[in-house]
Amino acid sequence: MKMSQLFGRTLRDQPAEADLISHILLLQSGMIHQVSTGVYSYLPLAWKSLKKIEAIIREEMDSVGGQEVKLGILQTRDIWKQSGRDEIYGPDMLRLKDRRDRELALPPTNEELITETVKSFVQSYNDLPFVLYQIQTKFRDEPRPRGGLIRVREFDMMDAYSFDIDDDGLDINYQEIIKAYSKAFERCGIKTVIVDADSGAIGGKDSKEFILLAESGEDTIILCPKCDYAANDEKADFQIPNNNPESANPLKTIATPNQTTIEEISDFLNISPQKTIKTIAYMSDTEIVLVSIRGDLEINEVKLKNFLKATELVLATDEDLQKANLIKGYLSPIHKEIKTIVDKSIFQDTNYCAGANKFGFHYLNAILGRDIIPTAQIDIALAKDGFRCIKCPGTLKSKRGIEIGHGFKLGTTYSTSMNANFLNQDGQPTPIMMGCYGIGIGRILAGSIEQHADEKGIVFPKNIAPYQAIIVSLNTDKEEIQKISLEIYDHLNANGIETIIDDRNTSAGVKFNDADLLGIPVRIVVSSRNISKNSVEIKTRISTDGELIPLESVLQKSNQLLNDYF
Amino acid sequence: MKMSQLFGRTLRDQPAEADLISHILLLQSGMIHQVSTGVYSYLPLAWKSLKKIEAIIREEMDSVGGQEVKLGILQTRDIWKQSGRDEIYGPDMLRLKDRRDRELALPPTNEELITETVKSFVQSYNDLPFVLYQIQTKFRDEPRPRGGLIRVREFDMMDAYSFDIDDDGLDINYQEIIKAYSKAFERCGIKTVIVDADSGAIGGKDSKEFILLAESGEDTIILCPKCDYAANDEKADFQIPNNNPESANPLKTIATPNQTTIEEISDFLNISPQKTIKTIAYMSDTEIVLVSIRGDLEINEVKLKNFLKATELVLATDEDLQKANLIKGYLSPIHKEIKTIVDKSIFQDTNYCAGANKFGFHYLNAILGRDIIPTAQIDIALAKDGFRCIKCPGTLKSKRGIEIGHGFKLGTTYSTSMNANFLNQDGQPTPIMMGCYGIGIGRILAGSIEQHADEKGIVFPKNIAPYQAIIVSLNTDKEEIQKISLEIYDHLNANGIETIIDDRNTSAGVKFNDADLLGIPVRIVVSSRNISKNSVEIKTRISTDGELIPLESVLQKSNQLLNDYF
Repeated sequence: MKMSQLFGRTLRDQPAEADLISHILLLQSGMIHQVSTGVYSYLPLAWKSLKKIEAIIREEMDSVGGQEVKLGILQTRDIWKQSGRDEIYGPDMLRLKDRRDRELALPPTNEELITETVKSFVQSYNDLPFVLYQIQTKFRDEPRPRGGLIRVREFDMMDAYSFDIDDDGLDINYQEIIKAYSKAFERCGIKTVIVDADSGAIGGKDSKEFILLAESGEDTIILCPKCDYAANDEKADFQIPNNNPESANPLKTIATPNQTTIEEISDFLNISPQKTIKTIAYMSDTEIVLVSIRGDLEINEVKLKNFLKATELVLATDEDLQKANLIKGYLSPIHKEIKTIVDKSIFQDTNYCAGANKFGFHYLNAILGRDIIPTAQIDIALAKDGFRCIKCPGTLKSKRGIEIGHGFKLGTTYSTSMNANFLNQDGQPTPIMMGCYGIGIGRILAGSIEQHADEKGIVFPKNIAPYQAIIVSLNTDKEEIQKISLEIYDHLNANGIETIIDDRNTSAGVKFNDADLLGIPVRIVVSSRNISKNSVEIKTRISTDGELIPLESVLQKSNQLLNDYF
Repeated sequence: MKMSQLFGRTLRDQPAEADLISHILLLQSGMIHQVSTGVYSYLPLAWKSLKKIEAIIREEMDSVGGQEVKLGILQTRDIWKQSGRDEIYGPDMLRLKDRRDRELALPPTNEELITETVKSFVQSYNDLPFVLYQIQTKFRDEPRPRGGLIRVREFDMMDAYSFDIDDDGLDINYQEIIKAYSKAFERCGIKTVIVDADSGAIGGKDSKEFILLAESGEDTIILCPKCDYAANDEKADFQIPNNNPESANPLKTIATPNQTTIEEISDFLNISPQKTIKTIAYMSDTEIVLVSIRGDLEINEVKLKNFLKATELVLATDEDLQKANLIKGYLSPIHKEIKTIVDKSIFQDTNYCAGANKFGFHYLNAILGRDIIPTAQIDIALAKDGFRCIKCPGTLKSKRGIEIGHGFKLGTTYSTSMNANFLNQDGQPTPIMMGCYGIGIGRILAGSIEQHADEKGIVFPKNIAPYQAIIVSLNTDKEEIQKISLEIYDHLNANGIETIIDDRNTSAGVKFNDADLLGIPVRIVVSSRNISKNSVEIKTRISTDGELIPLESVLQKSNQLLNDYF
């Protein structure tokens, strides 16, 4: 490709409307263009990169026996009602009506449609197992699209589905696909960690996420540097070290006027937040629930929601509190009528300060088991730095990242609700055992930029770079330079190195800046000065200094640099 | 691929819900699955074939300098309002609202969005010309989806757009892309003709269609077997031979009670329909218009609408006729107040019978120029078999076909309405000269089946067949046969012949029928009898008899057969 003919224009200045580095650089390099809120077009360079990502994913999915399909987009809303997810997705799903007023949905994912499809073809255990996958556009009406390709309303996703006769089969496919993911991400040149995850709205029982590590990511993951334990913060298990054991003092009430937050109460009474109890009231569907946790910790609402089996879990409103005779700012874990969930961070051998459910008063020396009698004591703290690993004596670290892939063991959730059965070896109708898997294609591109970019621009890994080499042709006014530049360009392209040439009639400064901005792995500079020595200058995007090499060794040297490149 | 593991099941019987052969065979072979009305999923074999079609189109578009992009799907309805096509598409366009009640559209095509996109990047003549294309899903709420992949509501289409500084540039790109299409279709193994076409709702001034010839097609094209003239029937030019010249007789009125159709009046008066005039009243937006044509011909409403520059053209209702004092069944071309359009099939030297605009009466000897004084005489007859070619003395033939590609010289229609200008060499803002081009990917697959299928099933051209060779492994209960079959399978795949093996535990009859149904070019039969002679049987899908060849020459013979295959 000649840059003089390339569609897309680089901007000298960074666009003001973006804050994530991938968003800034994708706009600045002219790779993407916004269509509507959270919807982007991919221009030639971005699309070349995305096609390479797609090809890598296809190869890895094929290598574990995946069969590629392409599902229809316009689905009847009926199948979403059948599975119950029409309601669960709520306003996140885009819906429309056709000219005959039939209700259609634009899919955020395809468990319903694939189950419906497979059902028509699977009769007996003989037809199983198999894995289907597709790369297709998905839609999700995000309330707050942001970050360019990171949180969008329309995105290309590889979604895969496994179909087995039993748990053992599912385990095998699940492991194989997770392995295929790992290989694909490695080939894409991005660093990811696999973490345990909650399975959320999609249902099912076991779930892994692939997280691309990046400070800008909106997911928090918890890692143990000592063992291999890793989970996202919503799912993470851990141990919470307790305070030093104390003997129980008698419960007493103390006036704490206007002291309603943990910070205020700690200061006011001069005790550590670790010796206070924070109590929060939630509406779990229609029931009010009190949830207590150590003052310095946060509640993991995902775990709480799962434990309560709630469809909707929201904070109780002032009105909810009033109805239940609960005193705002002074909520107490000591309560006889209302369901009280206590986190495992509360121990029996500590004298805690807790709300007294009386305006302007707290308890001192509240003791678990004596004063606090919870309905249930479970693990509902949000993991954070410094907790102890559940698997080893290591100390957990938290990191930020971007979810770029996931796998769910769905089990028979969808096959049961949609009647997708096979006849087992005894001739009995049995629901198909399913797994589902997804990779965000655009997020790999954006995530890769988040992970590798430097102050000069994008740094593409070689396998997903739109081009492997860029020829910066200076002194284009001289015919000889033009000729030699094009010869190198043809030579590299003919020998399998996809090359772009900057043949524009513009300054050397602009050309060097754009070569850095576009992040092409190998840069070759052709200039009058170099050519007078029968040489060109070559360097990689991440090396500081160029090397002068003889013209005839350009191909060999380019191959060598690419070989050693990430 | 092993058929024992392939997802998708062939049906023994043809599905009752389909009537087009491609629809029947795609369903029967388990290649497609209906999602909702006019929306299909592509299962593994169909999707493999479609990916090959896509790859061929990409290569040919790249070879003429096309740059691939991928546009967003969810577009704001605003840009459609800006171009005026929100109204023109009417209920054919699918629309929706997002969670903030913003109006979105699902694109049937992308002139608006591409113009809007290009506008942000093009500044001066230096940035032109270029060609952008994409392969992307389109949506069209067809009132009557039918024929499987032929008339659908959701379809994958390659849409391309050219951008030039002037007409000459547009001509070059237009010709280049038309050439790229021809090559692509040839490589896909389908026969097409290029015809002149009307440019319809898309706007613009010059237009070509690629028609795949097939009896089942819903388009009619007009061809001259003597010269290269070809057009679709809406656009076709031609000469209409006149009756023998007559001298003018005096106009008279004759009672024709209850004789209101051409057939009735011809029988009643015993004159040829060629000597009658058919007059029809239309509402051209809000104006009533009389249109007269020779009795045996039909009106081409597309040409008429274009001539009248009407946004909407419909037959006048009884109420419309009454308001204009027109007498139903006796409409007359002899009229002073109302706009009267007369077709060129009406000549001055014929005494015509025509309506008298008086209940129960016709005129005899109506003479053009003397009695009939048209507002305009233009060419508005629908072409048909037997007309004379406009370019040579040949006689036109009509054929049926399926439109699989088109090209439009848009001119500056969209760049003007959407303010997409560039600065020309004099620094003047000038609207960009545009062309647009489309290929229906799914229609190539279906059309290829329409064109080549026989009574046994699909006949795939080699370049778009999901696999080039199929190994029919009989006697799979014998370990030796299984082993040798798999060795051939591995050998062919390793040497670049994509091969599928029927290793299912089922009867020879089923395997032979399925091999025919799936239409794979080369079939290799491995059986105990053949293997005892150290041989296999090989044949192509279109040859009647197989040939027994030594095991060691399978690869060479397969390559040779494929080389000679279409």
